[in-house]
This record gives sequence, structure tokens and C-alpha cells, in this order.
Amino acid sequence: MSHNLLKGKRGIIFGALNEMSIAWKVAERAVEEGAVITLSNTPVAVRMGDTLKLGEKLNAEILPADATNVEDLEMVFSKSMEILGGKIDFLLHSIGMSPNVRKKRPYDDLDYDLMMKTLDISAISFHKMLQVAKKMDAIAEGGSILTLSYIAAHRTFFGYNDMADAKALLESITRSFGYIYGREKGVRINAISQSPTLTTAGSGIKGMEDLMDFSERMSPLGNANADDCADYCIVMFSDLTRKVTMQTLYNDGGFSSMGMSLRAMKRYSNNEIEEFKNEKGEISYG
Amino acid sequence: MSHNLLKGKRGIIFGALNEMSIAWKVAERAVEEGAVITLSNTPVAVRMGDTLKLGEKLNAEILPADATNVEDLEMVFSKSMEILGGKIDFLLHSIGMSPNVRKKRPYDDLDYDLMMKTLDISAISFHKMLQVAKKMDAIAEGGSILTLSYIAAHRTFFGYNDMADAKALLESITRSFGYIYGREKGVRINAISQSPTLTTAGSGIKGMEDLMDFSERMSPLGNANADDCADYCIVMFSDLTRKVTMQTLYNDGGFSSMGMSLRAMKRYSNNEIEEFKNEKGEISYG
Amino acid sequence: MSHNLLKGKRGIIFGALNEMSIAWKVAERAVEEGAVITLSNTPVAVRMGDTLKLGEKLNAEILPADATNVEDLEMVFSKSMEILGGKIDFLLHSIGMSPNVRKKRPYDDLDYDLMMKTLDISAISFHKMLQVAKKMDAIAEGGSILTLSYIAAHRTFFGYNDMADAKALLESITRSFGYIYGREKGVRINAISQSPTLTTAGSGIKGMEDLMDFSERMSPLGNANADDCADYCIVMFSDLTRKVTMQTLYNDGGFSSMGMSLRAMKRYSNNEIEEFKNEKGEISYG
Amino acid sequence: MSHNLLKGKRGIIFGALNEMSIAWKVAERAVEEGAVITLSNTPVAVRMGDTLKLGEKLNAEILPADATNVEDLEMVFSKSMEILGGKIDFLLHSIGMSPNVRKKRPYDDLDYDLMMKTLDISAISFHKMLQVAKKMDAIAEGGSILTLSYIAAHRTFFGYNDMADAKALLESITRSFGYIYGREKGVRINAISQSPTLTTAGSGIKGMEDLMDFSERMSPLGNANADDCADYCIVMFSDLTRKVTMQTLYNDGGFSSMGMSLRAMKRYSNNEIEEFKNEKGEISYG
Repeated sequence: MSHNLLKGKRGIIFGALNEMSIAWKVAERAVEEGAVITLSNTPVAVRMGDTLKLGEKLNAEILPADATNVEDLEMVFSKSMEILGGKIDFLLHSIGMSPNVRKKRPYDDLDYDLMMKTLDISAISFHKMLQVAKKMDAIAEGGSILTLSYIAAHRTFFGYNDMADAKALLESITRSFGYIYGREKGVRINAISQSPTLTTAGSGIKGMEDLMDFSERMSPLGNANADDCADYCIVMFSDLTRKVTMQTLYNDGGFSSMGMSLRAMKRYSNNEIEEFKNEKGEISYG
Repeated sequence: MSHNLLKGKRGIIFGALNEMSIAWKVAERAVEEGAVITLSNTPVAVRMGDTLKLGEKLNAEILPADATNVEDLEMVFSKSMEILGGKIDFLLHSIGMSPNVRKKRPYDDLDYDLMMKTLDISAISFHKMLQVAKKMDAIAEGGSILTLSYIAAHRTFFGYNDMADAKALLESITRSFGYIYGREKGVRINAISQSPTLTTAGSGIKGMEDLMDFSERMSPLGNANADDCADYCIVMFSDLTRKVTMQTLYNDGGFSSMGMSLRAMKRYSNNEIEEFKNEKGEISYG
Repeated sequence: MSHNLLKGKRGIIFGALNEMSIAWKVAERAVEEGAVITLSNTPVAVRMGDTLKLGEKLNAEILPADATNVEDLEMVFSKSMEILGGKIDFLLHSIGMSPNVRKKRPYDDLDYDLMMKTLDISAISFHKMLQVAKKMDAIAEGGSILTLSYIAAHRTFFGYNDMADAKALLESITRSFGYIYGREKGVRINAISQSPTLTTAGSGIKGMEDLMDFSERMSPLGNANADDCADYCIVMFSDLTRKVTMQTLYNDGGFSSMGMSLRAMKRYSNNEIEEFKNEKGEISYG
Repeated sequence: MSHNLLKGKRGIIFGALNEMSIAWKVAERAVEEGAVITLSNTPVAVRMGDTLKLGEKLNAEILPADATNVEDLEMVFSKSMEILGGKIDFLLHSIGMSPNVRKKRPYDDLDYDLMMKTLDISAISFHKMLQVAKKMDAIAEGGSILTLSYIAAHRTFFGYNDMADAKALLESITRSFGYIYGREKGVRINAISQSPTLTTAGSGIKGMEDLMDFSERMSPLGNANADDCADYCIVMFSDLTRKVTMQTLYNDGGFSSMGMSLRAMKRYSNNEIEEFKNEKGEISYG
């Protein structure tokens, strides 16, 4: 159901690969809410993924670009403004990849050239996007920019490897550039820190299913999925959140504020916890 | 402009005293977005303030109640469900007061009976509201509950006194109850941590104007006002943020993520900073 | 082994009940490091516990007092200064108890008089101690004051109940009073947030053993025990940490910075994780 | 005064340039506390700075090395173990530099090759150090490793530029590697987040004096200086903090927990605040 929250707004969505992608859902919801958009992804992703299908469905032009390449980004902004007929009101950066993870280099045996790539692709690309946009004055006054993060930026998850460092860097860039772009153009920049999500990106991570089960049981509302994330992105792009900036916003069913839930502990302790019932046989939370 | 974000929803707004109140703005915006609501405030506040006017304007019944009194709260929930025709979908707790501040007791000369009152009125009333609601099963599945906080819960501001401790307690209750209500009924509970706002409550605090100026200059987007807060409350009440819970959400123009801004430093150092211009005379952020 | 870190210093230790108490270990270590101390606990605890034995062993006078009672606290400070021959250099507040937990009232069925007691005993007693001390000018310039907290102040643990709220309040008081006492007398005030510890207090909490196992496996260095905590207290009391104040210091083997460890996940997933070995059969962290 | 806290311990100190350097003070204090150490710095720094003088004074060998170069780091560890006669017990990483700041590139006009250098020098060098050490098994069981950070990792300070991002990355590496090294070898890794300090590094930052004044007035204990930091490093290297890991430890006089102090506000508002006195003419904190 549309609320016309983005009526008349222009946006760019980076990183929609296929139906599982968060960016895919965001693109669909943005159009549903009245926005016109362009889509961007790497040339390889455009060729291999379903971005073209999405573009057709949403009547959105696809601009293949390497987000670590400044010239490519300039092209994306200049074409997007031309196509959409004006400055950009919102932008989603949903880009992340660790070649060290792909090559199964553990965190204490990193290849440093690959680590630089992890940081460049997953974090510095966001700075490049912002710097290019600001130099071109491509974002409209009061515009809203989002990137996607994960709580590993703050707490260590085994196997998340140098992506944790990349996310910490990404959230720092969110703050650092949020200050400058906010002050000069009223543009807000935030990161949404999402539950683990089974996307093509997420599925590369070891033990993902167990982690998702743990996360599901720890979170009182359960894991947030890609649809939930898309909804949250819409409200952050809308005019109803105009003073929210430089934040990491958790869309995670409560996970980030949990230390231990009864539900997770029951599985952890192999269902041995029986005493958490009161006299009436109801679960009691002590 | 309405987006029908709360169409068909039922809400209770606690704490609308007069036009300056955040709760007042939230009530107006909630109705504008399609909700039906009741209003509650202390009997004294109802008599002294303009709550009646607001009730008339919004066609909302007023239920005078002391939010520290469990029986009063039971009445508010039971009457609200009766009047609005069903379980409650959203609720705003905008209640806070420190008798120690009122009586000018500095933080190192607190009256402990008054401190207990500060905590009871400003924080424990939220727990009472939640506990009463849960026992009466008064909140609809997937409902959304908000309280208002301030960053003094995390960082010390001179003169904020025992209200800082009350806000820390309030945010803890938000998490603790958010876990239980989330898990059992899918109800989310969050705190919005707002810029200093010139309400009747806010105006009691010493040096408020200077603090607001500092906060304004520190925040890249400037202070968020009561209208901004009302908009943020609407999106948190809506179905677009269903997996966000147990959070403190900063609606503060970026203040919480700032260490020092150029603009604040310029006033601090009495405009002596001139070197922050580049060769073209433009402000440079180094 | 002593390093004479507290040579010539005078201290008061609140809350040493028996050998399992953290305060007990702190008292022993403080004396070992050259301090002279007094011990205080509730009259009941003094009668029931082994505080007298400790006093004898350490040649420390015992001052029975209810830490929620301002007059009792005045007596403790005035007698301590008299006995020890001068102003107090360091103080440990190791006091906490929830009558709601004792009476098995779950968090959504709290008795509010008992909640007030939880807050008074576990948090406000710290404020009372500080306010009394400051009014009597009982803490020496540059003195160091500690209280003990738990991460439940920030993240919800099932069963921890209103103690979570009490700890959040306690940490807020640490900051609020830390500002004032720091500025005026150079006194630092910090909270040490400790691993779950099997003390008489800790053992009242439901599912404590499973929680300790989870915590042990999550923490790369394992849980910190009472001895570890005593050591940390000593360095915080010493002159080597004179600019550290208003902090929550985690003494927890790394738990607070963990999202998920391989070791905890192995138990969680019932040892099904086998793929975390590399070709040489060594554990790989991906 | 020595407490023999590091008696029999072997350490490596990276980054002692001259008497103003924090690393310089740490080296002096470590030796005073009974440690034997080696010193390392870049070849240029060794030539230009006073490291040689320090080496003579402390009878410590100097091992010139580029900390971004893996081979150089291998040499430092292998020579240090040889010279000191065994595995390393503690290590200080005090290395940071932004070529973008040096070249006055503002944060919205960064040179990306230079940004990569900032990150490599100021953050990734720490990972390299740890990875090299772990591969060589150069750190003794229970060893302690420190790096120096600044609160700009969490809150934006104008002019701090890409060093903020580097510090965020550095703190993330501290956590990520702290998990692995802790679990496998009981080695703890922490960052000390220090007040702004007038070192040769610190003095390159714009408006440093005003920032230091603001920081001084905001912090109830005033800014921590290099000597204070050295003392804190000593206790973190000692055996008295063996369960503290993956933390950012603030040595900042309380700054990190302050929102606004009376003292800073008095300067900010140009001394107009007079009402903060009580009837007796004493300062009152409301």
C-alpha cells in the first residue's frame, strides 16, 4: 500500500542485484511511494544479475558503474539528474564485498591488498559517492542518503572478518560526511544497521544459518527482513525524518539491545531450562 | 499534508499541556494521519493547561489521570478501548518533571523523597503504563509505544540534575519492557531522544537559551523542534517501522554524533577563527 | 604480590559479605597494597555473614550501616576518618539487591514499592554516599570512587529484571556526580562492569549457570572472576589512573565487544559446526 | 615512583619521536617500572627526531622500521625477541598521520590515494603488527597490546578529517583482532582514547588550541596529558588488568561523558551566566 511518501522525489539506488537484494526491495517500494529512480550496479552485476528485469519493471534506467571509480560516479549523477529531471532527493548505497572472505583468508592471515579492496568497495565507495555528489551539487537541499551496515561494526562476530572493519569505517564516513553535507546543504546521511539478511551477499558468510537462528531467537521481534528494511528506508527518505542525521539506526527486531533472551538460552542450554514457568504453567521472565 | 499513515489506528497521547508541548503536536499529527485518539494528563494540568481546547479541536476525549497511579492508568486504558472501539495501536508517554529542579536543589544537595518523585513521574510511570496495558491486554498485536528522552541520559549537562538519571532509567525501562512486550505480543517500544525543545517543561531548566544555541550550532541540521518530533513519532507509530524496538532514536539534527562543529567553535572562541577559509574565501573544513 | 599501589591511602569498602564477595577480595587486595581501610555492611549482613572475620584478618574496623540511610552514612564517614586518621582516598560501593527478584515477581508484574527499594538499595545508595561524603568534605583531593555494575544496564538479559534498571540508574549517577565531584575536588567516580560472578548476590539470579557458560564462551579471555575484579579496582584506586572518570569500565574478558564467538556458537548449534577448520585441521576464523 | 609493575617484562614501543610524544613517556615509564624494551619508528623519524637520545637514556635498542611494511615488522619482532631474550609481553602502537590533513585537503575534497595512506599508516599498520606477531608467535601468553585513539572515532570534530575514519577503523581492528588473539593466546588488545594532547602529531590539527581549551573546560578533571596517558598504559600492560580486552578506554578527564559543563558554557556564553550562584555566592550546579 502506498502512502505517497516519496511523491515527486528523485532517487538513485546502488546495489540491486536480484530479488533477494535489499536494494531491490527499496527500489520497488520507492517507486510505489511515488518516486522516480535510476539504478546502478557494477557492469558485471548488471550482466550476471537481474537488474535489467527490475529496471524494466520499474521503468528505471540502469547506469552500470564501478562505485569505487570517481569518473563512473560522476556519470551516474550527471545522467541521473538528466534522466530524472533535476537534483537527487535520495540515494541508497547498498554495496559491500570482502575479497578476503571470498578467498577464505582468515582474519589473522589477511592479504592487505585484498583488505584495501574490501575497504574501498564497502566503505570508501560511500565517501566517493558523497564527495562526487557534493562537488556536482547533485543532491537537493534536504536530501536523504542511506547506507546499509551491520552490528559487527561494534561487536565482533566470528567469521565476519574484515567486513566488520569496513562497516566501522562506513559508519564513521556516515558521521564525518553527515556533518559537512548537513551543515552546508541540509542533507542528512544515515546508516541502517540491519538484521542478518539472506541476500546473495549475506549468504557468503560462514555459519550464516546458525547465526540467523541465534539472531532470530535473541530478537524479541525476530529478524528484520529485506521488506522491513525497505519500509524503514522509505521513511528515512521521506520528509518526516528531516532532522535525523549521522545515526546508525538499528532495524533488527531488538537484537542490538539484547544481552540474552530466554528463547536463545533455551536452545543454547539444550532445552534444559524448565523452571521459567510460573505456577500456572505460563512462561515467566523473572 | 497527510499520508494516511495511521488510518484506522487507535492511540493514547499522554502529556499534551499546551501548544508548545511535543505531545500536543503529536496528537494533531496523529489525527491528521487518520488515527482516533484519547488524551490524558494530570487533573491539574487539564485544569491549568489547554488540553480541553485540543480535545475539542481533535474530537478527542480527555481522560484526566495521574500517570504514577496504577488505578488511574487502568481507567485510561479501559475507557480508551471503550471510546475508540478496540485495542490501542500506539501510545505516547511524554511525561517528565523534577521537583528537585523546581525547588532549586542542586545535584549534590538532593532531597531524596523528591528524587523518588522525579523517578516515579518521569520514568517509572512508563513502566506502570506498560505493565497495566499488558495485564489488560490493551495494546494490539504489533502496536508501537514511544517515550521522549534526552541525551543527558548518556552525557552530563550541568543543571539537568536528577532528570538525567530519570532519563537513563526511562531508556532502560524502554529496553527491559521492550524485550517482554516484543516477544509476547510483537509490540515495539522506543525512546525518541529529542533536541532541547522550548516547551513548558524545557523552559524550567537553567541556562536553557545558551544550551539551545550551543546545541543549534553543534547540530549540522540545527535543533529539531516539536513539529519535527511529531513527524518522527508518526513514522514510528506507522506500520513502516515494525522491526524497530528497544532503541533510543536521536531526533537532534546530528548533535549526538558531534564532538565539535566549526560553527559552535566560532562562538566559543569569540570569532577568532578566521583561518577556516580557503583561498577563494570559502569555508574549509580541513 | 604487592606493588604498594595504595601505600598510605585510606579507604572504605561497602558490601563485603563473605569470601565469595567481590568487595571481600577488594578489601584484601587493598590492604595488601598498603592501604588502611574500614568495612561497612548492613547490620543483618554483619550478623549473618563473615564480615567480622574479614575485619579481624585485615585489622579493619567494621561499621554496620544501612547504605540507604543518610545518618548511617554520615556515621561511616565520620568514624572512618577518625579511625583511619584523615580523609578518605578511595571507596568501593558493592551493594545491590532486588526484592522483586527475591519475591519472584516477573518484570511485567513488578511491585512498585519493591521496585523503589531495588533502586534505593542498588543505585540511590551510591548517590547518598557521594552526597554525604561531599557535604562532609570526607574524600581527599584526587580520591577515587568505584561502584560495580553489569552490562544488563545496556542490554537486556532475561531474568535480570529491575536490577537492569537499577544498574542503568547507577551508571547515570556515576556520570552525574562524577562531573560535580571531579570539577570541585578532582575526585574521580567510575563503574566497573564485571562478568557475571558467582557471589551470594549473583547466585540468586535464574539460569545463572547457563548464563555464565554462555558468557565464558563468548568472552575471548573467559569470564573475569572476583580476583580479577579486585586487581582492576586496585589500579583504579591508585594514582596511575587519575584522569579516568565518569566511565563504565568493562572487566569482562571481552564479552561486551562480542556479537558471537565460534566457541559459543558451537554449543548453540550443538557442535554441528565442523567446517571451521582449515585444511590442516586448525580452527579457522574466516 | 616505581611500583615494579612491569618487572621482568619485555616490550616494544612504536612511535616515540620526541619528548612531547606519548610513546616517549610510555617508554620512560615502562623502563622505570622494570621492563626492558626496544623502540621502533620510521627511518625518517629516527633521523629527524630524538629517538636515539631516548634509546641511549633507556638503554633501549632502536629498530627503524616502516610499520606499514610487513617485512620491517617481522624484523622488529624477531630482533626484539633476540635482544630482549624472549617473547614480547607488551606493545604500544602510537602511530598516526594523515597526508590529506598535511596537504590541507578538506574532507569533501579528499585525495583517495592519500586517504588509503591515512588508513594504512594510522590503522592497518596495527593489524599488520598483530598479524605478524601472531604468525611469529611473538607475543607471550597473557600479553597486553595497546594503541592510541581519539574520541573523533565516535563523534565528529571539524578539521579532524579522515583521521576520524582512521581511528574508527583502528578501534574496530582492536576488537576484531582482540577476539582472535584473546581466544588463542590470552593476549588482550585495547585502545586508549586520550584527551587532545599537544604532541608533534596533535599540533598539526587546525584550531588545536581552542579545541584543547574547550576540552579542558568540558572535562571535570581537565585534559589528560602525556604523563597521565603513560601511567594508564602501564596499568594496562601490568598483570592487574588481565581480563580487560577489546575496549576503548577513555583517559580524558571525563570529556567523553560530558554534554555541557558550566565552565565551558561560561566561556561559550561570554561569561553572561551569573545566576549559577546560590544565596551564599557559591557556585550551584542546579
